[in-house]
Parts: sequence; C-alpha cells; structure tokens
Amino acid sequence: MADLPVSPLAPDHFPDLSEIRGLRLGVAEAGVRYSGRTDVMLATLVPGTTIAGAFTTSATRAAPVLDCEGKIGHDSPDGAAILVNAGNANAFTGIAGTRAVDSLTKATAKALSLPATRVFTASTGVIGEPLPSERVAAVLSDLAHQDAANWESAARAIMTTDTFPKGAGATVSTPDGQIHIAGIAKGSGMIAPDMATMLVYIFTDAAMSRAELQSLVDRFTPVTFNAITVDSDTSTSDTLLVAATGTGPKATAEGPFATALHDVMRALAHQVVRDGEGATKFVEVDVTGAAHAADAKRVAMAIANSPLVKTAIAGEDPNWGRIVMAVGKSGARADRDRLSIRIGPHVIAENGQLAETYTEADGARYMKLPEIKIGVDLGLGDGAFTAWTCDLTHAYIDINADYRS
Amino acid sequence: MADLPVSPLAPDHFPDLSEIRGLRLGVAEAGVRYSGRTDVMLATLVPGTTIAGAFTTSATRAAPVLDCEGKIGHDSPDGAAILVNAGNANAFTGIAGTRAVDSLTKATAKALSLPATRVFTASTGVIGEPLPSERVAAVLSDLAHQDAANWESAARAIMTTDTFPKGAGATVSTPDGQIHIAGIAKGSGMIAPDMATMLVYIFTDAAMSRAELQSLVDRFTPVTFNAITVDSDTSTSDTLLVAATGTGPKATAEGPFATALHDVMRALAHQVVRDGEGATKFVEVDVTGAAHAADAKRVAMAIANSPLVKTAIAGEDPNWGRIVMAVGKSGARADRDRLSIRIGPHVIAENGQLAETYTEADGARYMKLPEIKIGVDLGLGDGAFTAWTCDLTHAYIDINADYRS
Repeated sequence: MADLPVSPLAPDHFPDLSEIRGLRLGVAEAGVRYSGRTDVMLATLVPGTTIAGAFTTSATRAAPVLDCEGKIGHDSPDGAAILVNAGNANAFTGIAGTRAVDSLTKATAKALSLPATRVFTASTGVIGEPLPSERVAAVLSDLAHQDAANWESAARAIMTTDTFPKGAGATVSTPDGQIHIAGIAKGSGMIAPDMATMLVYIFTDAAMSRAELQSLVDRFTPVTFNAITVDSDTSTSDTLLVAATGTGPKATAEGPFATALHDVMRALAHQVVRDGEGATKFVEVDVTGAAHAADAKRVAMAIANSPLVKTAIAGEDPNWGRIVMAVGKSGARADRDRLSIRIGPHVIAENGQLAETYTEADGARYMKLPEIKIGVDLGLGDGAFTAWTCDLTHAYIDINADYRS
Repeated sequence: MADLPVSPLAPDHFPDLSEIRGLRLGVAEAGVRYSGRTDVMLATLVPGTTIAGAFTTSATRAAPVLDCEGKIGHDSPDGAAILVNAGNANAFTGIAGTRAVDSLTKATAKALSLPATRVFTASTGVIGEPLPSERVAAVLSDLAHQDAANWESAARAIMTTDTFPKGAGATVSTPDGQIHIAGIAKGSGMIAPDMATMLVYIFTDAAMSRAELQSLVDRFTPVTFNAITVDSDTSTSDTLLVAATGTGPKATAEGPFATALHDVMRALAHQVVRDGEGATKFVEVDVTGAAHAADAKRVAMAIANSPLVKTAIAGEDPNWGRIVMAVGKSGARADRDRLSIRIGPHVIAENGQLAETYTEADGARYMKLPEIKIGVDLGLGDGAFTAWTCDLTHAYIDINADYRS
C-alpha cells in the first residue's frame, strides 16, 4: 500500500530496549507481498524458555493461530522459535493454509534442531490468498544464523499498515539481579483483517514457570490488549506470545515483575491505538460505578466503539449526548438519573441532565487536546473498566475504502 | 444543519398514499430548533382506533418514549392523538423533560377533548437540551383544527438529517371492501442520536383489535426495522406506532392484511437505510445455513455493522476477506471449512477457500452496482436472517464530525 504518513500520535522515537539473554532475533526480505523491505522475523529462544500466549477468539481464525493454540499449553525442556511473516495472513486458505504452516514449522525446526511442536508461527496481511511459503522457507537458513537484528528492525519486519514500529520494555530490580522485559507489536487497531492484524511478542530473561507466566498473560490481557479498539472489527490472526528465557533471576506472579509486565503490555496496547487507522486523538474511556465489572466493560466498549462518539471526537465536538446514547445501547444496567459524565476535568452531566457548571466553551477547549479522557459514572455499584480507543476520521475511510481498488 | 444533497439511493418521488378514514393530519412551524420549515406533526384519530407500538430498548431512552411505553398496552374506547416535534429529542433532560411531556400531552388532550392517556408524543433532534415545549403548545390549537396536511407534508415535518421524506402504503382487497395502509418514517439510520432518531407512523382503516395489531407489530418489527443498521448506534428515541382506525373492513392477523403491513414496514425500513448518512450503496446481507435463527442474525448484523466491510463496499472492493472476518467475530457458531460466500450471483468462497470459478474481475464489476447483495451460507443448519445496511463513506464523517462545531 502507498506510504501512509506517520500517525500524529506516534511516540517521538523507538524506545531503547534491553537485550534479552537467551534470545536471538533475525529479519529478512522474503518478498511475500512487499518489496524493498523486510517482511519476516525469526526469534530463537534457548532451552528452558517458557512461553505463554493469548489468541483471537474469532471463529474464522487463521491456520497459524490454530497451530499455535495447540502448542501453547505444554511444558517442554527444548528451545523454541517464533517465525512471523507480514503481507499474507494465511487465513481462509483451506487445507493449503494448514499445509503451509506444517511445512514452515518443519523447515524451521530442522534449521534450528528443534521439535516442530516448539515452533510458533504467525502470518499477517491479506486474507484468502495462498501463502507463498516457499519464499519464507528460502530465507530460513539465513535467518537461523543471524544475530544482527535489533528490536526496532524486528518491529519493522512485522509491520503492515502500521505507520511506526512499536516497542516497549522495562527493567525490574530483584535481590538476584535485574530482570529485563522487551516487547514489540504490530497493528493499526484490532482491526483490518486484510492488512493490520495485531501481533505482539514480549521477551524476558526472567525465570518463570509456563503456568505462572500464562497466569500473568491471562490476568493482564483483558485490561490491556482486550481493552483497546479502533473500529470494533476483530482480526482472524491476533496473537500475543510472551517468552521467558530463564537466563535471568527468578520472577513470581506477584510483585514487581508482574507490574512491569503489565506496564509493557499496556504500553504496547496504547501504541496500537496511537497507530489506529486515521487516528488523530488518543482516547481513554473510564467507566466507574457500574453494577459489576462486566457491565463497566460493556459501557466502556460501547462508547469506545461508537462511530458517532468517535466522529464527534474527530470533530472536536463535546457531543455528550452521543455518550448518553452509547451508555443506553450498551445493554448494561443504567439509571439515567444517576449517570454522570466528565470530559477531562469538566463534569458535563449529572443527575440525568446537563451540569449547571458546564459550559460549551470549556468542553470545546478541552476537545482540542490530542489526548481525551471520557469519564462515565453509573452511580450503581463498584464495577469499573478502562478502555482506550482513537477517533474516526476521513483517513480511516481513505485507508479502508481505497486500499485494494 | 446545512442542506445535505438528497441521497443517491432516494426513490424517484414520494409515493401516492391513500387517505385513511378516521385520521386527520396537521403540520405546523413551531420553531423548536429550525426556522423556515414545518417541525411539528399532529395525527388525530377517531374513537375505536387501536394502537400498537415498538420502542427503542436503550437504557437512556427519552422522556416521550417512557411516556408512550406506559400507554401502549391498554385498550380504550376513546380517540387518540400522536404529536411529534423535530429539532429537539427531549432526551436526558431530567425531570424537566418529564414535565414537558406531561404539559404537552395535557394541552393536546384538552385541545382535542381526549384523555391524556390517549396522547402519544415523540421528539427527535438534539439530546440534552431542554425542550421549549411552549413553542409546540403555541401551535396546538391551530393543529387541532387542521385537516389540510397530506402525507408528504407530514413526512417532511418530522425530518431531521433526512435528505428525503419517507412514505409507503398498500391497499388490500377483502370481501368487505378495501383496507388502506399508509405510513411515514424519518431517520437517516438507527443512528445519530442528536439529529436522526428513527420515528415511524403507520395508519390503516382496518378494524383490528389492539392485541392482534400488537402481535403483528411484534412479528414484523424484528425482520424490518430491527433488521436495518447504518452504524450500529441505537437511538434514545426510536418509536414505531401503528394505528388502525376501524373505519374500514375487519382485518385478521393472518392473511393479506398482515402481508401488506409487513411490506409497508419493510419498505419504510429500506427507505431509512437508503437515507443512511453518507450512503451510496444499498446492501442486503442474506445469511443462511446457521445453526439457529439467532446465530443467523448475529452473523448478518456483524457483517452489516462492520466498518471494514462497509468501507470496502464504499470503495467498490469485493473484499470478501472482511466478510470472513465479520463471520468470525460475530460470536455465532461457524466452521471455516463449511462457509460459503456470494456477492450477487458470484460464488466467491466455498469449503474454506477461494472458489475456483471466481475472478476478481467479476467481483469488481458487481461491486460497481448501487445495490449489493452479500450471501453467506454457514452450512450448519436452517437458521436464516436478512439484514439491510448501507456503505460507510466520507460523507458519514462529514455529517457527524462537522455537524455541531
């Protein structure tokens, strides 16, 4: 696709991420769909690495996702590898798709002397076209011997419609020394199945059992990656893998490592929203006072997914009536007369009507900011949830209406 | 709002609708929000009229909706009235909103010598601003004595962001003579709570009990008005009322009257989609072969609401991978390898992959048509559902991002 301008919400620069002992990164140009850029990444992990993951719940998930799901829940003493290509999602490709995954995992396993059950693949890009797996296979021996790639080049190799490479990391001090965490992601939303599915790879040198690592992934995914939306469309290929090489200090599921992992996951999730297709505003939706947590999420996602709320934000319009509408349609328990609504520091509505202190001038001034916070209190209970999204602009239509034609 | 160009999907002309004996229509300029146009409609109905209805399920529904819901389920020997204003939705207006409804229903009841329980009101327009009910009250005595309004002027008086007035009718021959049905609607989607909630009023001279009439409304609403979507946003004010004056032949809940009422409801629902904000394509989504009917609806609405499917249609791109994505995210039971997808006469995908007979040239040519049919067969059971929607274009962003600012 034609080069898109970098999102105005992009960070200033790619972060400086730690090296993770026990991990080698390689990138290559396989020409799967793009030319003149890298499009394959290989991460090779030492024996003793534990791997946890989370995947799209789509009923039409891609062949590599189905393969990874079958492999993720098992302990193994062997090393491991993660192979990712951009440009073709190998989704809805029938038996040929399954064969392509088999052939690539076997070829990777052979090149790295690993069992095929320890090779995790992902493909992102156009749906429904056969994956030219021979092009990926052709660069495997080069990749297997590489150790040159840095975090930014790895992040760039998995981009599709992304306008910037995404990375985040943390360092945790423990009595036994430092634990390092570094992660990369791609995605211009949870969206755009033919060009921008979300993939996330986080690595740490922590020593942690697979079960404990998985428990952290299960705990933080709902409040990070599953709390963002660009346009409510769920991809066929979303994949998150977290690999702990065990080359550093031991970590536990409670304490500073968990907090740091949560921070890294949230930072990557935010970067995906900041690169949401056409985004010009980063939006946090905080819902409190719901009858229970599920209702809070329902309300937060109804607001974050509403085309009318998102176009109002694009237009810098404090159109709180649309927030009321989204609360109403969410299906959550709500009492119009207990509802209060804030944007940033401004209370707009309370007790079922416009707040007396609110002025349109205050609202209009606030909406000009690049980062917007919407607060909704339902006044019913303790349920709370925070979601992140972006606005809906002409550029979203440009990217998605004009791309293939 | 600035005058919008008439939708390219608008019918050539407003239909020629029958007069309904026992019904008087009046319109007036009350200046609720707009100037230089009518913005209030009053329908007055003779004693013996039965009324059935359906309303938005929003948890933040507007004061007039709450009032109508309380009144709809009762038989009454009295006449009735329906009073509608455009420009202000009287939604999220607290106790002042309830008082405005009370005051208007009482004033209308007095002007027409009716009990207030037989006055049904609706308001459509901006949310959260107090309704200037005195402006509506000021035109009531004029309205109460009018009998001049025709169907088109009534349809125009309730428009907000609509670009054309919406009407549909039918005549049913019975052994006892002809039954006439005429209906009007407003709405530029199920959407746009500050300017375009959906209101529908259908009148007939049929003689039918309230319970029977309600049973027909309950039967046909799910497959007409609840089967359309412009952007997945549910208004605070959606209201459908069907009134049978009983001045004509008796009708039954089975047979030709029911079929004709269904036709009128579907025709009005289609006109709302044809006036969907920014629409350039009218889209039918036919889902068959689902495990059950609820799953069929889930899949149809996931496709019809998907921003990625809708932008692809706007771009005349036969991007069937996005249809696969929408099936996958719907939550319905689906088996990738039994799924088949058609656009118009072209089978695009079957058995979990691209159909051998399909060519992109065929798909691209079909997508240039103004009316698009998407067919999805899940290959699992007998569940079927048809939904109607429109494409998602730059004009939607224009209308909704730029309106209030």
